[in-house]
Amino acid sequence: MKQIFLALSIMVAAFASAQSPIKTKASLSDETLVLATFDTIKLLAPDLKGGKPLMQAISNRKSDREFASRNLSLKHLSEILWVANGINRANGKRTVPSAMGQYPLQTYAVLSNGIYFYNPQKHQLEPVVKGDFRNLAGKQTYVDTAPLNLLYIAKGKNANDNFNMAMMDSGYCGQNVYLYCASEGLKCVSRAGAKEAELLKAMNLDSNYNFILAQTVGY
Amino acid sequence: MKQIFLALSIMVAAFASAQSPIKTKASLSDETLVLATFDTIKLLAPDLKGGKPLMQAISNRKSDREFASRNLSLKHLSEILWVANGINRANGKRTVPSAMGQYPLQTYAVLSNGIYFYNPQKHQLEPVVKGDFRNLAGKQTYVDTAPLNLLYIAKGKNANDNFNMAMMDSGYCGQNVYLYCASEGLKCVSRAGAKEAELLKAMNLDSNYNFILAQTVGY
Repeated sequence: MKQIFLALSIMVAAFASAQSPIKTKASLSDETLVLATFDTIKLLAPDLKGGKPLMQAISNRKSDREFASRNLSLKHLSEILWVANGINRANGKRTVPSAMGQYPLQTYAVLSNGIYFYNPQKHQLEPVVKGDFRNLAGKQTYVDTAPLNLLYIAKGKNANDNFNMAMMDSGYCGQNVYLYCASEGLKCVSRAGAKEAELLKAMNLDSNYNFILAQTVGY
Repeated sequence: MKQIFLALSIMVAAFASAQSPIKTKASLSDETLVLATFDTIKLLAPDLKGGKPLMQAISNRKSDREFASRNLSLKHLSEILWVANGINRANGKRTVPSAMGQYPLQTYAVLSNGIYFYNPQKHQLEPVVKGDFRNLAGKQTYVDTAPLNLLYIAKGKNANDNFNMAMMDSGYCGQNVYLYCASEGLKCVSRAGAKEAELLKAMNLDSNYNFILAQTVGY
């Protein structure tokens, strides 16, 4: 049993190290993300043993509506995307369920320098459109300056396809982000509204896509 | 700061002790629920420091579709209801968010001897209808014998009121239950379908109520 555990630990460590070959965990925890260029952001492998005890995180779950403007650390950004819609198993399955395994939701990160698409398979953020579009991510003033607005956008065969399923799925994703924030001392709020038409247009998404939910995250 | 923490700890301990005055945590962990009578079930206060580290729970999140028939322990049943839709703050707010704070969802527990309503304010299960209605809680055969089927049912002004909001809310609730099960080594699956008309009729719920989501939980 001990040997199996040891072997598994080594595999996990190897996986983590393959995903983040240079930087060590200790040096990352306080490192603020620098958005000098608008390129693919290779996210760090999640610390699979990290965080507060689950019941403590659930106990501390709440919504906040005031955010500092400073950027998230790369560790926080990486783990937020992973808990929201990442892959947690070798068979490609995810941290969140989806009815019929359809996963109509795509997750986008609105950062200060542009909007990025989260690619769960590659665990990376891929550039969609350059520029500060935070003011389109919601109607509240804190949206304009917070370091991260997550967007959950449903892709369907048409505007109505998958809509109800995507509403439910966004709750699964959103709760993971809430608990992660409660565990890490970050602030978080879900928002059902955005400047949706303008936002989808800016992202070059046609009528097959539906805005479902947003979450603002920061310190 | 230390004094504030100490005072808070005492308050939490006092709350926990008021909710479970007799039994100790150690004696409860393996105790199987006995459903000899169909009465109000006073649930145990959640262990607010319990569970695996959050990231480990998220890492282990998955759906299972085979369940043993033995009942859950009172501790597990109590904490499942609390994470699903319980109150986590002195101001009455909950473990899960809800758009506009409306909380249209009601949570019901289908146990082997009847269907119970979860009262978050009193943290107790209240009898709704006596009898084994598990076969109405879903269309899969495991539903008939699993010890717990949770039902998330939306209450609106009419059948369509609050429907989309309730879909999203059910995801928030459902994800907490998934993570709790991953943390405790329990099995869990979300199910979008049930024998809905028969189920609502058996529960004496009229057309203002909508079945939204179910989850089967067990060992």
